Amino acid sequence: MNDRPVSAAGRVGPMIEAAAGGSVRSTARLISLVEAGGASAAAVSAALVGRPRAAAVLGVTGPPGVGKSTLVTVLVGRYRSRGERVAVLAVDPSSPFTGGALLGDRVRMTEHSTDPGVFIRSMSSRGELGGLSAATAGAADLLSAIGFDAVIVETVGVGQNEVAVLRLADTVLLVLAPGLGDGVQAAKAGVLEIADVLVVNKADRDGVAGTVRDLKAMIALGRSGRAEATDWRVPVLTTVATEGPDAGRSGLDEVLGAVDEHRAHLDRHEGPDRREARRAEAAVEAVVLQRLQESLRSPAGRDLLAGAAADVAAGSVDAHTAAAGVLRALAGGS
Amino acid sequence: MNDRPVSAAGRVGPMIEAAAGGSVRSTARLISLVEAGGASAAAVSAALVGRPRAAAVLGVTGPPGVGKSTLVTVLVGRYRSRGERVAVLAVDPSSPFTGGALLGDRVRMTEHSTDPGVFIRSMSSRGELGGLSAATAGAADLLSAIGFDAVIVETVGVGQNEVAVLRLADTVLLVLAPGLGDGVQAAKAGVLEIADVLVVNKADRDGVAGTVRDLKAMIALGRSGRAEATDWRVPVLTTVATEGPDAGRSGLDEVLGAVDEHRAHLDRHEGPDRREARRAEAAVEAVVLQRLQESLRSPAGRDLLAGAAADVAAGSVDAHTAAAGVLRALAGGS
Repeated sequence: MNDRPVSAAGRVGPMIEAAAGGSVRSTARLISLVEAGGASAAAVSAALVGRPRAAAVLGVTGPPGVGKSTLVTVLVGRYRSRGERVAVLAVDPSSPFTGGALLGDRVRMTEHSTDPGVFIRSMSSRGELGGLSAATAGAADLLSAIGFDAVIVETVGVGQNEVAVLRLADTVLLVLAPGLGDGVQAAKAGVLEIADVLVVNKADRDGVAGTVRDLKAMIALGRSGRAEATDWRVPVLTTVATEGPDAGRSGLDEVLGAVDEHRAHLDRHEGPDRREARRAEAAVEAVVLQRLQESLRSPAGRDLLAGAAADVAAGSVDAHTAAAGVLRALAGGS
Repeated sequence: MNDRPVSAAGRVGPMIEAAAGGSVRSTARLISLVEAGGASAAAVSAALVGRPRAAAVLGVTGPPGVGKSTLVTVLVGRYRSRGERVAVLAVDPSSPFTGGALLGDRVRMTEHSTDPGVFIRSMSSRGELGGLSAATAGAADLLSAIGFDAVIVETVGVGQNEVAVLRLADTVLLVLAPGLGDGVQAAKAGVLEIADVLVVNKADRDGVAGTVRDLKAMIALGRSGRAEATDWRVPVLTTVATEGPDAGRSGLDEVLGAVDEHRAHLDRHEGPDRREARRAEAAVEAVVLQRLQESLRSPAGRDLLAGAAADVAAGSVDAHTAAAGVLRALAGGS
């Protein structure tokens, strides 16, 4: 923990008021505190207790190159045209740095860059994956608590890292393009299981009908565990997301309709409390892992580990027994 | 935990004897127990206490397409020609399945497939990343304890996931190809910091001299923290790893020489005990994370998490305070 975020944490209350009043700068600084983890993130979390959360949290995932960012840009426009404030968190769990592609894509969103009703942020992983999941959950929670109506969490890729990050979304939208390789990969990684709405973008290309058919077959095979629990029928939609005057003419309204319908479905079948509890569960779990990783990095944690490792190397204890001792000692002091 | 691995754990002792005697089948089954985590992995770990570990553990990493697998295949041949038994653990931390590329590459290793002195295994991630690091550390430790002279841990990619897995290696070999993009990516991800030997493969291509120069500049900028601690000068070598009769004629001897030299350097500067302790530290840390993740998945863990999430959703506590409570409760019972 360095000093700067901790001292900033003392001013968290006024910063939250400013952010709720529309200050982009305060919002950005609060998210930096959340990203810093440790006492800074805990201070933001504590200061938000009691504030209502009303945002719909939408996860958008899919392999690179399927037109995900264009789709998100068009969706942002749709939310805006309904008068809703919308935030986008762009997350790249596969890289410690949200580098080239993701930031490059964001350039396309310049049409929204002067709109105070739109907030865009790339989330970076300073450290372990647990930290990124915790930071993203914390940022989404903050944005919801300061009055955004929709929070879009966009991740790159269809791997297990994405699954961890996307668990905080109410609705997960999986974007694919014609050709089934990525769909199979998503199924293997468990992304298909947590997807609530499937979108085959670039539907003006060859092979769309086949991809839609194959995805429907995969869903019928019971791939979608999360949907099953609430009896939700996962729709497979096709879109041609392009920008400009025709933006989203093809299928985008159906996508937004399906997203709204899924949220309404959850509220009917589970109620908003259960929905909030599910999101809180993902957040708490991420913070548990983050706290343990932070403890392991602390001077006391490093000492504990070094002592345990010396015992293991000397042959007086095995790694699993030693690890159980380290875990007990660290967690007790947390 | 399912029943099969646990009941198999009761026969761990005889299986270790058989594996040490050269049984490939017992070795493979023991690694499956390690991969299963929980009580199975703990049983294998406990049964290995007191056995000497003599293997040199070599980590090989680098982006896809640089010829890493060919290089590993040729290295295996070199170890064999010195009469050493060698094991290869192929790990893909970026994917929950060691799919296409990695297994496909393994086909090239068929030249070693009938050699009882060579053991090859793909490590899969059943679950979280912590599990994969713990399983790979456990498998490398097992292979060392049953008498392998060298264990090569090969990972795909140059991201932070790789850093976690590679911390168990005595020597880390980073393989790149001409063109610096991947080198910069590796530097950002911290892979360059843990690399002890840099190899620019495909050195018959354009741009080799520039890549070597740029990598040397990066190293001079103090990128290599691990080497600095022991005053090791990270060499930048060039190779043209190809198979067939000319296999490894170009630069491969230098690579093996640098690997041997690095190990000797560590033993001179730190001693074998410190080297073993460093490896044990990586293993214990991975198991700590794995145990916590397993606790979170257990029925008791799920209940704890659900209770905490309900409190957070109801607004009576923040996510960080709730997470601290969950961590204390889980670790206390571990």
